[in-house]
Amino acid sequence: MARLITLVESGDRALSEIAAELGPDSVKAVVVGITGSPGVGKSTTTNELVKALRRTGKRVGVLAVDPSSPFTGGAILGDRVRMQDHATDPGVYIRSMSSRGHLGGLAAATPAAARVLAGAGCDYVLVETVGVGQAEVEIASLADTTLVLLAPGMGDAIQAVKAGILEIADIFVVNKSDRDGADATVRDIQGMIALGASEREPGQWRPRVLKTSAAKGEGIDAVVEALEDHRRWLEQSGELDKRRQHRAAAEIEALALGELRARFTELPGEDLQTLAVEVAEGRLDPYAASMRLLEQIS
Amino acid sequence: MARLITLVESGDRALSEIAAELGPDSVKAVVVGITGSPGVGKSTTTNELVKALRRTGKRVGVLAVDPSSPFTGGAILGDRVRMQDHATDPGVYIRSMSSRGHLGGLAAATPAAARVLAGAGCDYVLVETVGVGQAEVEIASLADTTLVLLAPGMGDAIQAVKAGILEIADIFVVNKSDRDGADATVRDIQGMIALGASEREPGQWRPRVLKTSAAKGEGIDAVVEALEDHRRWLEQSGELDKRRQHRAAAEIEALALGELRARFTELPGEDLQTLAVEVAEGRLDPYAASMRLLEQIS
Repeated sequence: MARLITLVESGDRALSEIAAELGPDSVKAVVVGITGSPGVGKSTTTNELVKALRRTGKRVGVLAVDPSSPFTGGAILGDRVRMQDHATDPGVYIRSMSSRGHLGGLAAATPAAARVLAGAGCDYVLVETVGVGQAEVEIASLADTTLVLLAPGMGDAIQAVKAGILEIADIFVVNKSDRDGADATVRDIQGMIALGASEREPGQWRPRVLKTSAAKGEGIDAVVEALEDHRRWLEQSGELDKRRQHRAAAEIEALALGELRARFTELPGEDLQTLAVEVAEGRLDPYAASMRLLEQIS
Repeated sequence: MARLITLVESGDRALSEIAAELGPDSVKAVVVGITGSPGVGKSTTTNELVKALRRTGKRVGVLAVDPSSPFTGGAILGDRVRMQDHATDPGVYIRSMSSRGHLGGLAAATPAAARVLAGAGCDYVLVETVGVGQAEVEIASLADTTLVLLAPGMGDAIQAVKAGILEIADIFVVNKSDRDGADATVRDIQGMIALGASEREPGQWRPRVLKTSAAKGEGIDAVVEALEDHRRWLEQSGELDKRRQHRAAAEIEALALGELRARFTELPGEDLQTLAVEVAEGRLDPYAASMRLLEQIS
């Protein structure tokens, strides 16, 4: 499995054959996106969720998405280290993901790795993303269920709106619930959900707001229950198919665009770098430059 | 100017003509990226920097990049509201940016708007990005100078490394310096810069670490000095040309890929949506699907 995911990360062309082999099994796992600002306790919460899901006999895969530096490709091992609780459990597979060298970036590498885990029998794939930037929001939004973690005092409800996470959250978890301000944060989020209630059509999912103290293992079972409720709603409402098609579209597009980006740097005529020099000096406008680039590949 | 930037945001094709008109003037401003986690005081600091730059007679443009929700396209007006200090100053132009509907997203819309501001005579364009996700890091990295804001207790130095901001920062600003832990945060960052010192070649820029209390207007002049020092280094080292070529390449590429994304959804044969349904059901693998997509456009 580790070797397969390494292949997935590298974007090796042989992947097409592997992907074809996986077939319908590869879409069976529930993919849960877990996102939130740095420091809210994502890794600890993920760790506790793994334990709780294992208690119910589920097989679990974890993909810790590491937006590796655009400059050095450096990756931090923190998540891997903290997950050692499960090192000897064959029902748990944990992996830090890196987009390094992948043609389609994390948007393609993450679902591909999730497919490998599903094909290998995982019931749940937890995708932990660092940060709340747009790229991470997008990755989380490609999950079947998106869990947004907040912590009291880490930034108020307005910041959550700013980061665009309100619309994508199926379940809000206010972690570190023993800290001052936890109840206020819960109320803020509930208030914002209530504000959005009039826009929700009947039968739509109303986001849940839960409190946990992951470090003490408190409140985790309620999160698992909410995950299961959401899964049932996804299946009954037809939303599961929609989300999976959305995810597949994003993945196909990311792969196609990644392939094209690679081609842009290998053009025999005016490649991207040549055009960039002209634009940087103000001799050519970028719109005209992009058209020249496209003429050469189509 | 407002109408031009609206055109830029909408990705209107008429832009090519406007961009061509702007010519060499459009690349003269220094673009300063300002990034950091939600809540570190980016808007307040930007506001104070505008004041300080105005005191030295510079014309200043501000682009507040709002990663509008991928789902509703909603934008928050907070930044615009807080910038009312400058509403009557003709030497300051402030604008919230949205990627809504722009073909190349923020990666193309932001430099295009910066070019409009430069063409209109701005000496400095400050690009304030929300969050520290990969997309924001990328936008910041397209600046001539990147300023990373931190606040004591908002997350330690390790979180900064995790978010990939250490490699892109030219100037670190520890804001809210009157809070506990400010000196510890400064030491952590300086420690990490020292660790990286052996990898820096002679003549490379060593990131500065400064303390501010933007709400009190303290420490801002030192930031302006650091910006000016960095600008001189950029010009003397030849790095300015390199960064601008990098920015131009990213912009051209984003425009080209945006155009291709639009084409993917309009294919007469198997468009993206049709292929996504097959992939979602496990009947087709995404690699094969991406190749089918590409065959149709090239």
